[in-house]
Amino acid sequence: MRTRPLKVALLGCGVVGSEVARIMTTHADDLTARIGAPVELAGVAVRRPDRVREGIDQDLVTTDATALVKRGDIDVVVEVIGGIEPARTLITTAFEHGASVVSANKALLAQDGAALHAAAGQHDKDLYYEAAVAGAIPLLRPLRESLAGDKINRVMGIVNGTTNFILDKMDSTGAGYQEALDEATALGYAEADPTADVEGFDAAAKAAILAGISFHTRVRLDDVYREGMTEVTAADFASAREMGCTIKLLAICERAADGASVTARVHPAMIPLSHPLASVRGAYNAVFVESDAAGQLMFYGPGAGGSPTASAVLGDLVAVCRNRLNGATGPGESAYAALPVSPMGDVVTRYHISLDVADKPGVLAQVATVFAEHGVSIDTVRQQGKDGEASLVVVTHRASDAALTGTVEALRKLDTVRGVASIMRVEGE
Amino acid sequence: MRTRPLKVALLGCGVVGSEVARIMTTHADDLTARIGAPVELAGVAVRRPDRVREGIDQDLVTTDATALVKRGDIDVVVEVIGGIEPARTLITTAFEHGASVVSANKALLAQDGAALHAAAGQHDKDLYYEAAVAGAIPLLRPLRESLAGDKINRVMGIVNGTTNFILDKMDSTGAGYQEALDEATALGYAEADPTADVEGFDAAAKAAILAGISFHTRVRLDDVYREGMTEVTAADFASAREMGCTIKLLAICERAADGASVTARVHPAMIPLSHPLASVRGAYNAVFVESDAAGQLMFYGPGAGGSPTASAVLGDLVAVCRNRLNGATGPGESAYAALPVSPMGDVVTRYHISLDVADKPGVLAQVATVFAEHGVSIDTVRQQGKDGEASLVVVTHRASDAALTGTVEALRKLDTVRGVASIMRVEGE
Repeated sequence: MRTRPLKVALLGCGVVGSEVARIMTTHADDLTARIGAPVELAGVAVRRPDRVREGIDQDLVTTDATALVKRGDIDVVVEVIGGIEPARTLITTAFEHGASVVSANKALLAQDGAALHAAAGQHDKDLYYEAAVAGAIPLLRPLRESLAGDKINRVMGIVNGTTNFILDKMDSTGAGYQEALDEATALGYAEADPTADVEGFDAAAKAAILAGISFHTRVRLDDVYREGMTEVTAADFASAREMGCTIKLLAICERAADGASVTARVHPAMIPLSHPLASVRGAYNAVFVESDAAGQLMFYGPGAGGSPTASAVLGDLVAVCRNRLNGATGPGESAYAALPVSPMGDVVTRYHISLDVADKPGVLAQVATVFAEHGVSIDTVRQQGKDGEASLVVVTHRASDAALTGTVEALRKLDTVRGVASIMRVEGE
Repeated sequence: MRTRPLKVALLGCGVVGSEVARIMTTHADDLTARIGAPVELAGVAVRRPDRVREGIDQDLVTTDATALVKRGDIDVVVEVIGGIEPARTLITTAFEHGASVVSANKALLAQDGAALHAAAGQHDKDLYYEAAVAGAIPLLRPLRESLAGDKINRVMGIVNGTTNFILDKMDSTGAGYQEALDEATALGYAEADPTADVEGFDAAAKAAILAGISFHTRVRLDDVYREGMTEVTAADFASAREMGCTIKLLAICERAADGASVTARVHPAMIPLSHPLASVRGAYNAVFVESDAAGQLMFYGPGAGGSPTASAVLGDLVAVCRNRLNGATGPGESAYAALPVSPMGDVVTRYHISLDVADKPGVLAQVATVFAEHGVSIDTVRQQGKDGEASLVVVTHRASDAALTGTVEALRKLDTVRGVASIMRVEGE
């Protein structure tokens, strides 16, 4: 066994970084045995150097992250700052100065993954980022390595714990969105500004990364259709229940039926209670994968939090250190398939549509005609009258999103349709 | 990209082997792109050479597996024969003649894993066997690599699809064991001789492999406590329901509370319906993992079958080929922790015990005294009388298996205890 330690620079020492540092210390002997050489914390870049950090030698702390990654003796840079800059520049600088990188930065990887992989490749270094998607759940390595001999057709996951907590609360207590969000905030599951979570930006970044790895194709954040879950109501949950479904915010990456293109999207959707994703509770994450040979797989676990994220970071750290000792690198970006990413209009799925309509004869015929004219086939219709008004709940067979959008636009123009109360996709059947 | 192909020798061309060969042909371009070099089937060793094998060049077929692995130009040997011999000798011969090995052979790995790893290490070759445990589910790679920076405390899984199919059938239809087994046999889920599955031998081999990897400790098949599920009755399922539980055949690998030893065992157990493993239906497999930092993870998918197993074999094949091109090897055996494996008597868990007792005053006091004398604390007792006989259902708090065994022996000696109808462990709480 080599006795000269591998040197690690830690960029960021917040909830995740401090856990990484703690485990590197408490599990030092195990890490040494598993890597084949000792691993040493050589520097910790922080914004507030005066804060006391238990277990971290104050001499290692610096505010100059750039100088740290430029030292030249660093083997692995662990980036847990988050955000685009300065993380991006620090990572590329790290490659230029001989280090490999482990990152937990989903936003950066989703936006600039191709450029970062290119920089890693140019300098023959590793770029690992298991922690960027679904926290502690081993997911990117299984997709990239375990399924490397298979053909992945669909990845559908709950990849944001905050929104799953809120939706689960709405489902189990009948609470409205705001009430459930307030509870999530009070319990620390939602941030003061929950936009990134509830509007689906966080999940969209993860969808871009998952689609890229699954389909060996570059998928940028802009390629991902995104719809938040702030408009999901208690009434939607009641409708879902009537169909034997619940509602989840899903990230869905799909290969088209002809295999020639892919799509990636994030939106709330109804899924049957019998689907394995339906029983994912609280802030847990789970990702359901369908492939040619393996069939249906699911990966489940905590999607966020200091310790779980640190577990994923350290798994990558061990792998990168081993590669370094072997004088090799792990699998880099695989984008050889270069499939086109189709727009949302091409996505084919089922829809649940609630309409407020006039309660008089002939309305159903009018509505059904609009669906037929747009080539959208109806599976079931349920009419409910009340005081001259009526609601009409239509569940369609599979149709393209473009056809559905056209249908809804035409429905809005009908005199007898007072309003479209809700439109929700139905997945997982 | 290298153009000289990597040469693969396939040992065995049954359900799994033929799928491996098929996918190597149909997905050749993808495999080439993912590996970085073409991969070529260089020979297929079979027992019955005359059988027509669609898509496999008859010139590649041989009955002389030994000559094939000795050729010297083989990069990777894929062993899907199963059983101890000739698989063991062929694998070690392959290493001696320069090849790395991908195997799906749980029995061999559980019995001789240490020796095979030593042979691989001696010749600086890879030995991968993801397909040996839980079929298509990426499990060994996540445990070995993704969680390499974490500390695994418990692995609890449904790792045998045949028995899960039978137990699920008993649970959902109220069928008895024999009736459910007959259906499993008719549908092809159970073999003509189901002993290896229903007596827990198959699951025990997988438990040995899982415990070894999870605890960085050699765990041999003989170290695994094993109890089959042939004595589980419809009455047991009724009892389980009353407790809000179902019954699964579980493989459980645990680190002792003090961290100084480990245990591995296979037996039927009651688990709460709310536990993620409770909803694993049919022939599916799932493995629940608890670690210090990641927390609770679950991996779910098909545990057997030609295609799913081939998916796992091919994932390993890609990894081994990449290592070969890199002039490196992946992580080998990790047994540095060398923790002692404790006997079943040291396992601490809860128990559900049904006793047939005389229906007269003082019986409960007698029974309760026996539990107390053996240090086993009672959680709940339920008495049910009928015609001078009564049944007494006792659920204990956590106690050692040795204490429980002593308790049951003493109970059997009581005049008022007519019989011990069933003893079942309660897990997952």
